Amino acid sequence: MGWGDLGAFGEPSKETPNLDQMAAEGMLFLDFYTANPLCSPSRAALLTGRLPVRNGFYTTNGHARNAYTPQDIVGGIPDSELLLPELLKKAGYTNKIIGKWHLGHQPQFHPLRHGFDEWFGSPNCHFGPYNNRERPNIPLYRDWDMVGRYYEDFKIDLKTGEANLTQLYLQEALDFISKQQASQQPFFLYWAIDATHAPVYASKQFLGTSQRGLYGDAVREIDDSVGKILKHLQQLGISENTFVFFTSDNGAALISAPKQGGSNGPFLCGKQTTFEGGMREPAIAWWPGHIPAGGVSHQLGNVMDLFSTSLSLAGLQPPSDRQIDGIDLLPVILQGKLIDRPIFYYRGNELMAVRAGLYKAHYWTWSNSWEEHGKGIDFCPGQSVAGVTTHTQEEHTYLPLLFHLGRDPGEKYPLSFASEEYQQAMGRISGLVQQHKDTLVPGQPQLNVCDQAVMNWSPPGCEKLGKCLKAPESDPKKCSWPH
Amino acid sequence: MGWGDLGAFGEPSKETPNLDQMAAEGMLFLDFYTANPLCSPSRAALLTGRLPVRNGFYTTNGHARNAYTPQDIVGGIPDSELLLPELLKKAGYTNKIIGKWHLGHQPQFHPLRHGFDEWFGSPNCHFGPYNNRERPNIPLYRDWDMVGRYYEDFKIDLKTGEANLTQLYLQEALDFISKQQASQQPFFLYWAIDATHAPVYASKQFLGTSQRGLYGDAVREIDDSVGKILKHLQQLGISENTFVFFTSDNGAALISAPKQGGSNGPFLCGKQTTFEGGMREPAIAWWPGHIPAGGVSHQLGNVMDLFSTSLSLAGLQPPSDRQIDGIDLLPVILQGKLIDRPIFYYRGNELMAVRAGLYKAHYWTWSNSWEEHGKGIDFCPGQSVAGVTTHTQEEHTYLPLLFHLGRDPGEKYPLSFASEEYQQAMGRISGLVQQHKDTLVPGQPQLNVCDQAVMNWSPPGCEKLGKCLKAPESDPKKCSWPH
Repeated sequence: MGWGDLGAFGEPSKETPNLDQMAAEGMLFLDFYTANPLCSPSRAALLTGRLPVRNGFYTTNGHARNAYTPQDIVGGIPDSELLLPELLKKAGYTNKIIGKWHLGHQPQFHPLRHGFDEWFGSPNCHFGPYNNRERPNIPLYRDWDMVGRYYEDFKIDLKTGEANLTQLYLQEALDFISKQQASQQPFFLYWAIDATHAPVYASKQFLGTSQRGLYGDAVREIDDSVGKILKHLQQLGISENTFVFFTSDNGAALISAPKQGGSNGPFLCGKQTTFEGGMREPAIAWWPGHIPAGGVSHQLGNVMDLFSTSLSLAGLQPPSDRQIDGIDLLPVILQGKLIDRPIFYYRGNELMAVRAGLYKAHYWTWSNSWEEHGKGIDFCPGQSVAGVTTHTQEEHTYLPLLFHLGRDPGEKYPLSFASEEYQQAMGRISGLVQQHKDTLVPGQPQLNVCDQAVMNWSPPGCEKLGKCLKAPESDPKKCSWPH
Repeated sequence: MGWGDLGAFGEPSKETPNLDQMAAEGMLFLDFYTANPLCSPSRAALLTGRLPVRNGFYTTNGHARNAYTPQDIVGGIPDSELLLPELLKKAGYTNKIIGKWHLGHQPQFHPLRHGFDEWFGSPNCHFGPYNNRERPNIPLYRDWDMVGRYYEDFKIDLKTGEANLTQLYLQEALDFISKQQASQQPFFLYWAIDATHAPVYASKQFLGTSQRGLYGDAVREIDDSVGKILKHLQQLGISENTFVFFTSDNGAALISAPKQGGSNGPFLCGKQTTFEGGMREPAIAWWPGHIPAGGVSHQLGNVMDLFSTSLSLAGLQPPSDRQIDGIDLLPVILQGKLIDRPIFYYRGNELMAVRAGLYKAHYWTWSNSWEEHGKGIDFCPGQSVAGVTTHTQEEHTYLPLLFHLGRDPGEKYPLSFASEEYQQAMGRISGLVQQHKDTLVPGQPQLNVCDQAVMNWSPPGCEKLGKCLKAPESDPKKCSWPH
């Protein structure tokens, strides 16, 4: 989902009344970012509070390449990483993930081995259908065991776009919340639904209800679901005890437009890129009785802050034995403070850009290669800024391209290198980058090796369902990451 | 000002708390249009309720050329046109225009000859400064007489961007409203300020206050002023008796970006074009006690509707002896109705595009000529959609380019000509266009002839001020309209 997909963020069809209401009752973050323009690294960052280059969710197979966890990936979240639910356990929290895990699907990466107590969802994206010969269909798990596969037991009709998955995930959330409220147990719910990822789907009751086509139907279903979750918290009388944060894992995928693509509002390009359209996210904090209604914040925020903020809410300290990139947003949310901190835009192993205040410096520019672009893969459809949306990887390390995101949110007008403004802003940013690079200890890259043998052939529990498939011979090779 | 310039419409700096509050208390129009992507024709359409091609505010000097009223224009609003204030007079209204008139500056076009009772402002844009030899500086009028000239008596500092004009216009508005309230007289105030038109300016107290640079300072000053006007109405106890509508006369001028350019949000291109960025406008209706707070409408609206709606509010009928293009929006505003009506997008004498429902058909596409583009004049900076943002005038009359503005607000993905959806939508639109063209009686074009002798050399009242200048010999010629 992109920054521009909610009514509160200026989507012209304005079809998200529940999320808009959530913002009106809570705090809207206009300068909130993901840690990576792709799903797996973003989610790994959220749960560890650390940049993907630290927690291992990146590749070194190529320079500045996006990577994620398709089902032939060998790697996953390292045991050495401390995940938010692992820490929250210490404060008595029950932790549940509903939806897409995406931090590795081999047994050692299972979410219940990394702090979660419950899981209903899938380890990978709902791509498919597959024929179960070259590639198995993606399994869904309930806790330790698979309970079926997408397209087989959990239908997605690619022709009509119908699938009731968001409804299943919603009901699962409501039930979990009810159970926790009944048992008076604190809980952490990571509601990481697949929608609006392509192939886009919505339940029958939402199909055809949006001005925006199928993608809009999916957005409406999410909006409706969030509304139901918030209402449920209120009806159970625990809304003033429950902190809720809504955001997305990367910008809208413009390659899926117009039928399945979202909106990044006035920003440049989309998912896969380190332009604003790829990494600035819709974000809303909600906590009645604590967050003043109608708040708006320009705090530079990041999904990694949800790690630190959640620990703070639970009265816990972040780990002191490692670098944590997230910050505690509670002073921002509760007292309206602004914390000075940079945003780092990575693509794989390369620091592509840095934002400090209203300035953003690009050290590398790249949309995608001419070769990929020639195949019709376009991360910036209809947009082209000379020297900025480049189709070769352009290095600007010695003279970064600098933009003022207040005057130029669309990153169209680089500041003159000779200007005093450039000199001043770059002086500050250069120091931040130097410090960042000097102290950076990259993690072991997890997204380098792919092997068809590790695919979801025989997930735990497959025997009971008669859904075990025979894995082919192991044939590990370097994963191919074209972007 | 553009659709994307207000916080309520998704401007990322969200610096318009008063306009956002106006929207929260009133009704937000997300699909509201101007009648022309340029100032003069738009304003003529607002005040006559008629398309510029009917009321004469167009040119036939070239095909599909935008034209306006620079100070060497010979034409202006014809006597045969009935303006909103002329009609409101019949219902006892006192009518005032504050700001830019722009419907002709020769004596016969004076606003007080066309229904206004009072005027404080200028007949033309605040371009300058001029040397008063080749070209006089633009005069400001109070009612019948000039009271000074821009850059001489009404300072605009092009270097710092400082000018207190919006403050003067605000005070004038507050005083007029007070006077009318005191005398218990109904009034029509047309607050047609120059800001945010380039050269962009703001008062000292607003300079440097925006994240968005000088343009944002000007937006903030407008926002603050609107807030003060609404508050004044409330304090005088007449807010429930006063209908207020905020909108703009054309999309943001992207040629002035980034230092003086605004935002058209997710829409394509800007001022001068018939893409959404040129013609879709921010729009808010406010009338406490009548309009339900927090309303949102997808009614296809047009500045011409303000003519018909205002007449309806005053209990008057629109003229029956001529075609009126505006519609009465009161059923929309007060009862939430949706009225099925098309939007016609003209450039000069050519119907470039038509919107019906969510479909928009382009019969002609053009941004600007290669020649103008080569001079650095770019109405679509950073945007380029093959076959759409064309630099030659491309005719699509026999096979219009069709867009679905819900799925594709950015006009990037024309529908397949072979699709059933195309056939169905075009069947309907073709009928609307046929009917429109069959019944169209173009007015006498007013924007064809320019003459340096008609410039503002010696406006009425210049003697008293010693500000009369000698006009050169009359030398009428065809005006040059490159766009």
